[in-house]
Amino acid sequence: MGIEGTPLFFCCESLLCHRRPSTRNLSVLYSRKRITLNRWRINLRSSMAEKLQNTPPVTGEPSVFCYGGASAFGVEITRRFTEGGRGVVSVDSAEGSRQCTESVCFPPGATCKAQVDIAVRTLEKHGLADHRFGLMVNASLGWTTGSITDDNLFDSVDFMHRSNVETSLVLAKLASRFLAPGGLLIFMGSAVALTPTPDMIAYSLAKAAVHQLVMDLSGEVGRALPRSSSVIGLVPVVLDTPFHRAENNGFAGEDWTPCDVIAEKLWEWSNQLPNKRPKNGSLISVTTHTMDNQRGSKEQRTLFRTIKTDNFVQTNLL
Amino acid sequence: MGIEGTPLFFCCESLLCHRRPSTRNLSVLYSRKRITLNRWRINLRSSMAEKLQNTPPVTGEPSVFCYGGASAFGVEITRRFTEGGRGVVSVDSAEGSRQCTESVCFPPGATCKAQVDIAVRTLEKHGLADHRFGLMVNASLGWTTGSITDDNLFDSVDFMHRSNVETSLVLAKLASRFLAPGGLLIFMGSAVALTPTPDMIAYSLAKAAVHQLVMDLSGEVGRALPRSSSVIGLVPVVLDTPFHRAENNGFAGEDWTPCDVIAEKLWEWSNQLPNKRPKNGSLISVTTHTMDNQRGSKEQRTLFRTIKTDNFVQTNLL
Repeated sequence: MGIEGTPLFFCCESLLCHRRPSTRNLSVLYSRKRITLNRWRINLRSSMAEKLQNTPPVTGEPSVFCYGGASAFGVEITRRFTEGGRGVVSVDSAEGSRQCTESVCFPPGATCKAQVDIAVRTLEKHGLADHRFGLMVNASLGWTTGSITDDNLFDSVDFMHRSNVETSLVLAKLASRFLAPGGLLIFMGSAVALTPTPDMIAYSLAKAAVHQLVMDLSGEVGRALPRSSSVIGLVPVVLDTPFHRAENNGFAGEDWTPCDVIAEKLWEWSNQLPNKRPKNGSLISVTTHTMDNQRGSKEQRTLFRTIKTDNFVQTNLL
Repeated sequence: MGIEGTPLFFCCESLLCHRRPSTRNLSVLYSRKRITLNRWRINLRSSMAEKLQNTPPVTGEPSVFCYGGASAFGVEITRRFTEGGRGVVSVDSAEGSRQCTESVCFPPGATCKAQVDIAVRTLEKHGLADHRFGLMVNASLGWTTGSITDDNLFDSVDFMHRSNVETSLVLAKLASRFLAPGGLLIFMGSAVALTPTPDMIAYSLAKAAVHQLVMDLSGEVGRALPRSSSVIGLVPVVLDTPFHRAENNGFAGEDWTPCDVIAEKLWEWSNQLPNKRPKNGSLISVTTHTMDNQRGSKEQRTLFRTIKTDNFVQTNLL
């Protein structure tokens, strides 16, 4: 698969790798626990040493770097990949911590540069200076509504910029050092940035920038990013998360996509040869609909398709 | 034309309305003069009173609100419209002042909200609370280069966000109150946000957000924006400004577009009926090429075309 180095289990088992209850339980969203950087270092050191001694190497299989690993989506990614025997590094920003349960957090207010520095120094201190991750993903989720007439417009734009654009740039910066050749670099876009969405102005502007970032970084493969790697933007309509349910009287919409379905697709891609995966620079729409099955009950189906134009015309079922 | 109210000359003649030398003179770029808000109020009050007494009303013709009026582009807009007898309100942010010559500036560091508040209060104090502008344009120009490996990446992203996205949002917010029915609301996009541009990552992300803003605001016509108005994004390749020339050893590229050509197009559109102008929500590519003319010398030609897809396919010559 062209993956260099030996991906290691670099995972705080006590923090993230145990099985969690469904992320649709609201308590997951709000029962956060922050752990300071010092505590983090201690945890990493002890759990890493244990892992390195006890875990057989999983040569050729990618390990995972998950920014926003404590979000509902990050938890599902962590669950799926650790079930599959892959190591997961989860880091989370102060901004992303609204969806944290137990997770390592950057100090509140850490700038982008500080986040990169902390992540690099921490990896280096644990002997992972030359490690390369097969999957690096931004699982942090930031969303808000509001139109141009909203009194909080500028605050919302700032919030969305920090929680979507800046988090993606931190991951991109780290990927320029830690992504493996043939690796996957995944960002979260949104369908709102492909159509006029005057009622979600701050969110749509931030996601439009993320889509552009995917396009820009696709041009870095073989330059700042390693050869054969793929930069991909996922473009869901609405993710089924505790936060979104809380905003919707506790219920999910029929067209919302469960996070575990996307985590499963990432697992699938990470096990495919690079030339079988979506093309570098792709935006992949993620749409879900509910249908009657043969047993007379309802079931959801999620489709992943390459987006060909800015009009959200979708082709190439994946 | 559906323009309501009586557009007034609301212009600091001593600051902006006199004829300027070509903006391609570098001295224009760097010989800035800031005028404090108090001084501004005094100037506005005296020049306004004079204008209102001496100038015949120009009923039915739009007046202009130019954010970033002191930029090379803003100066050309001001020149063209004042030549045509239209009044121009020029305001400029601290960030945009790098390209100021003589202009009214917001206090350095003014937040978006402060900029909106100052503009609204100033207009109200001068009896323009109910005035509506036929053309509102963001002429501020912010540009920088740099890839994901750039040490200054995060600073560049912040700078570009402030100078492109936030300035556009300030204008949009003001337009929701001061744009005339049938008016034109113009934003500056860029061709870099339609293609992978890894070497201009901060700039391309900001311009992608501006393109999305144009799309979002197009959905506000008849809601937060007045009926029959048009939100349009101009998408040039490179503008011929003193700043860009300074970055290019003093010379303009053959495909750079002179600012006065775009100002002329805005003048043309502002004199057309709304249904003859580009469609609301359009992104309009602005491309320039140099060709041999029949007299055996070179001449530049600039084309304005509606962009149909994100692949920068251009159609509909305007």
